[in-house]
Amino acid sequence: MAVYTNVSDEALAEFLTHYDLGKVVSFKGIAGGVENTNYLLQTEAGSYILTLYEKRVAEADLPFFIGLMDHLASRGFTCPLPIRNRAGEALGRLEGRPAAIISFLEGMEVSHPTADYCRLAGQTMARLHLTAQDFDIQRVNALAPAGWPPLVESAVGEADTVEAGMAELITSELAYAQQNWPTDIPSGVIHADMFKDNVFFLDGALSGVIDFYFACNDYLAYDLAVGINAWCFDDELQFDAERCAAMIAGYQEIRQLEPAEQDALPVLARGAALRFLLTRVNDWLNVPPGALVVPHDPKAFSARLRFFKSATPSTFGLSTSGTS
Amino acid sequence: MAVYTNVSDEALAEFLTHYDLGKVVSFKGIAGGVENTNYLLQTEAGSYILTLYEKRVAEADLPFFIGLMDHLASRGFTCPLPIRNRAGEALGRLEGRPAAIISFLEGMEVSHPTADYCRLAGQTMARLHLTAQDFDIQRVNALAPAGWPPLVESAVGEADTVEAGMAELITSELAYAQQNWPTDIPSGVIHADMFKDNVFFLDGALSGVIDFYFACNDYLAYDLAVGINAWCFDDELQFDAERCAAMIAGYQEIRQLEPAEQDALPVLARGAALRFLLTRVNDWLNVPPGALVVPHDPKAFSARLRFFKSATPSTFGLSTSGTS
Repeated sequence: MAVYTNVSDEALAEFLTHYDLGKVVSFKGIAGGVENTNYLLQTEAGSYILTLYEKRVAEADLPFFIGLMDHLASRGFTCPLPIRNRAGEALGRLEGRPAAIISFLEGMEVSHPTADYCRLAGQTMARLHLTAQDFDIQRVNALAPAGWPPLVESAVGEADTVEAGMAELITSELAYAQQNWPTDIPSGVIHADMFKDNVFFLDGALSGVIDFYFACNDYLAYDLAVGINAWCFDDELQFDAERCAAMIAGYQEIRQLEPAEQDALPVLARGAALRFLLTRVNDWLNVPPGALVVPHDPKAFSARLRFFKSATPSTFGLSTSGTS
Repeated sequence: MAVYTNVSDEALAEFLTHYDLGKVVSFKGIAGGVENTNYLLQTEAGSYILTLYEKRVAEADLPFFIGLMDHLASRGFTCPLPIRNRAGEALGRLEGRPAAIISFLEGMEVSHPTADYCRLAGQTMARLHLTAQDFDIQRVNALAPAGWPPLVESAVGEADTVEAGMAELITSELAYAQQNWPTDIPSGVIHADMFKDNVFFLDGALSGVIDFYFACNDYLAYDLAVGINAWCFDDELQFDAERCAAMIAGYQEIRQLEPAEQDALPVLARGAALRFLLTRVNDWLNVPPGALVVPHDPKAFSARLRFFKSATPSTFGLSTSGTS
């Protein structure tokens, strides 16, 4: 939620000489994006988002992120389209940072999604999975279970200062996930961060998905597990079974979940809750001086995690398949 | 540089039912505005800024600020025009805050203004002064010399931790200003914060002035003194006499400075440097936990203040008039 890198008018004008976007009409820093600096850029050609990639994003991952948006958008999936400069490049440098211009998506976040909105989000997630099937760059999910032990280690000493019992919770849940994580369900490119603020709606229709900077190769059903965490709890942190059923139904209208995926959903949802709990509790305990973002409350995810500990496929409106 | 108050899609939709702006097309928090929360709001009718007034802005002052923008914009001065709802009101409430929708101004800040840009800024400042002459609400400048003693008092104990000698500087300069502040030069409505980020340019022309939330009644020449502080020092904090002469010349193309104003300019510039030094050093020493803004460096204004200590009218390219 910040502008980390200021862009001068001279540097912007020089950067834009490489593009066919005409002159600048307006340019404003956007208060969103924890990882990167984003500007709303209006030129004679239209509205765009200019992103400067900050230190938390590995430069080596940028061809994956930008290539994925390009792949999806050019196949009709509604996400930002990276704009290429006259040399055909979508990635440049500005104020010493890697930088890209992407198309502007209309729409806005829905604060309190109904089941209908969840169904649309589920459909769109499945479309993303299918459309990305032939995308040919790979990116390991750095926040899969293999990446969790260091996060548990760095937080466990102080976790109980955030919430009583949190140290025990993250330790035991890490062990549970390591022992129970599925091993042979369908994989592919997933968004991995399809929270409400990354999905825009316009007039009740889903207008687009943004922020692909956690996208990676992982289990497709894990994306749905993230989505259930993100969309299917109310403001009092109560699970909303109707929204969850709608999200899964929407997903399955586009891509049918295999029985093994349905069986894995409880452990995946539990693991997704742990993954967001771990990054949030680490961010909470390590707010750097001069941070420009308010850390998210980790307790929103310890509550989800405790809920999912007793979940079964029927929690998600699925019947146990008995095949795994 | 932050969104202090989140606006839900439901609350926004309800707020907009009172306006004739059509449906929302997009809605994004803007990373700018230290005092208030600003969103870029695009509707079927066009682009707007939605501002929620936060605690640092006194609600009693809002009719002045909004009335002034309305007064200026409706007389052809390029500043945001407050949009009235169907009840004729430009000020409403949203998410528990006073809120207003104002028109969107094209253009962007110039990082390194040349003398030409300074001349345009000077012209526009004088136009603002003349256009506001018949505005009939008054607002005392809370940051005039009468408001400085508490700021000196709260900072003086720790000021030397920011820069050696700063405590002595602010104490002696407060005394100097109190003894030498002019008493009978022309007053009127001034912007009082015409820094570079509040003036937009488009294709080399000045496209508008924003952020009237420090505007008040005070000496007209004090506004110019603020402008000289803001526009006429380079990145190495060196005074740029050419830019300063151009700003004053631009101002005088529209409104001639009286001899007493010309004579007062050194003490006004010195006082303006002290005013920004005082608020900056207080902000610097009192960054609240969870602050979403980086405080500005006070040393940028102690340097200006030291420069202006030896200034005379000829520093500003003016000949001493001998009339005061």
